[in-house]
Amino acid sequence: MRYDVAIVGSGPAGLSAAINAKIRNKNIIVFGNSNLSDKIVKAPKVDNYLGIHGINGENLKDMFKSHIDKMGIEITEERINNVYAMGDYFALMVNEKTYEATTVILATGIEYAKPIKGEENYLGKGVGYCATCDAALYRGKKVVIVGYNSEAEEEANFLMEMASDVYYIPMYKGEYELSDNIEIINDIPIEVKGDMKANKLVFRNSELDVDGIFFIRNSISPKYLVPGLEVEDGHINVDRTMKTNIKGCFAAGDCIGKPYQYIKAAGEGQVAALNAVSYIDKK
Amino acid sequence: MRYDVAIVGSGPAGLSAAINAKIRNKNIIVFGNSNLSDKIVKAPKVDNYLGIHGINGENLKDMFKSHIDKMGIEITEERINNVYAMGDYFALMVNEKTYEATTVILATGIEYAKPIKGEENYLGKGVGYCATCDAALYRGKKVVIVGYNSEAEEEANFLMEMASDVYYIPMYKGEYELSDNIEIINDIPIEVKGDMKANKLVFRNSELDVDGIFFIRNSISPKYLVPGLEVEDGHINVDRTMKTNIKGCFAAGDCIGKPYQYIKAAGEGQVAALNAVSYIDKK
Repeated sequence: MRYDVAIVGSGPAGLSAAINAKIRNKNIIVFGNSNLSDKIVKAPKVDNYLGIHGINGENLKDMFKSHIDKMGIEITEERINNVYAMGDYFALMVNEKTYEATTVILATGIEYAKPIKGEENYLGKGVGYCATCDAALYRGKKVVIVGYNSEAEEEANFLMEMASDVYYIPMYKGEYELSDNIEIINDIPIEVKGDMKANKLVFRNSELDVDGIFFIRNSISPKYLVPGLEVEDGHINVDRTMKTNIKGCFAAGDCIGKPYQYIKAAGEGQVAALNAVSYIDKK
Repeated sequence: MRYDVAIVGSGPAGLSAAINAKIRNKNIIVFGNSNLSDKIVKAPKVDNYLGIHGINGENLKDMFKSHIDKMGIEITEERINNVYAMGDYFALMVNEKTYEATTVILATGIEYAKPIKGEENYLGKGVGYCATCDAALYRGKKVVIVGYNSEAEEEANFLMEMASDVYYIPMYKGEYELSDNIEIINDIPIEVKGDMKANKLVFRNSELDVDGIFFIRNSISPKYLVPGLEVEDGHINVDRTMKTNIKGCFAAGDCIGKPYQYIKAAGEGQVAALNAVSYIDKK
């Protein structure tokens, strides 16, 4: 099946896009997480969302949740690894699965974690952002996963079924649910080194020779998520209608620029959705 | 006294600008009306304001009102006739009064009433938008006021103190509180005629020879409100920071373009305010 609008992100921009596209009777899918937005949930107090004064982030999240619930909008808890423009539709890749949509709205927020030294140079040459996608390439090999969230543990476990050795570098605190034969290294990675391909991850206090290195962060930088997307200073380029340089691809919220604020994001999500709807209706 | 930020308009864009500027400790003044927005109050149902589902316009207005009340923001019920850029500040004219502000945020909404034939050609040449401002020019003369709201009645009464004859054309239903010697004409104006100056108002069923013609609408077209402001297809030109072509003058909401939606306007009001604040702080 092909959706009219696929929305990547479940923060205020993504949710506002979702409700507006749904009101216009479009068939939508929203990729995100059940917490909606980790950023919002952590906000101690929000005073500048017009109409809702003096609320904490958790309660504001509940109001957003209640809004989408009443409209029958569900969040699909999957992490999109790649979005490919296929001409008259988009293919959204989730590990081994593919979703199709006529338009895409990127509402991915902003990734504060910067790439480490050498990481971007070796991307696609021993460095990757989706371990499950590339697992087959590392059969019988030595792989390291730098995980920024617990979802990365699943990727490590999946990889362990094929690779000979898997090292896991947790960049967060918590209990790690990892296969027994995965080795955890508690050190901070600072550089990717290699020749033609990446072959070494350098830590603050040690280093590790490997065949492949994966960084599993909360969000993937838009320029790797959507090949060909115009990005400037870390923000997706859009015009006033929220359309990107790729036909049928729109963007809204923190990922398109400052200020990083909820109602600004919600307003942009609405504009993106209404323009995606009009793009579909003109087709 | 000089305000940091003067906000013209009390719809979602203006109010969102107000709360954001106030949170940043700026000294603000908001010009508008106690109903906040006539457009909102009339909305039967609003489903696309993220966080607040299935509300009617009247109740949404109450939520906005409660928000600004809690923050100690008041609405100054005056109709700005002109905004002049004076170099490092703005002069906002209300009939005989002047307010001063370092920055201005235009959130005037969109005026659906189109000018009638000939009106714009004779603007400043016998046609005006502020009767009280120009009253002195019409001492002992014959003037007609086309009023789109009850505030226009006050302008007519004021003018009657100087002019020899005042005709009032009500474009709305209601009780008219007019001086006894003002003549009401119940007809639809369709064209302004004249030679060097306007001297005739043509109605559907009659015509009237006059020395001056005033149109008192709910909002003044931005290009007449702020001399020198760049306007394209009826919308104020802004960039992504909501700044206009005039330094220190920002705009947000319906007046800068479609879609005409509440949360889009609120988001833009926020962006305008935060950029106005940063403009002030850099001075």
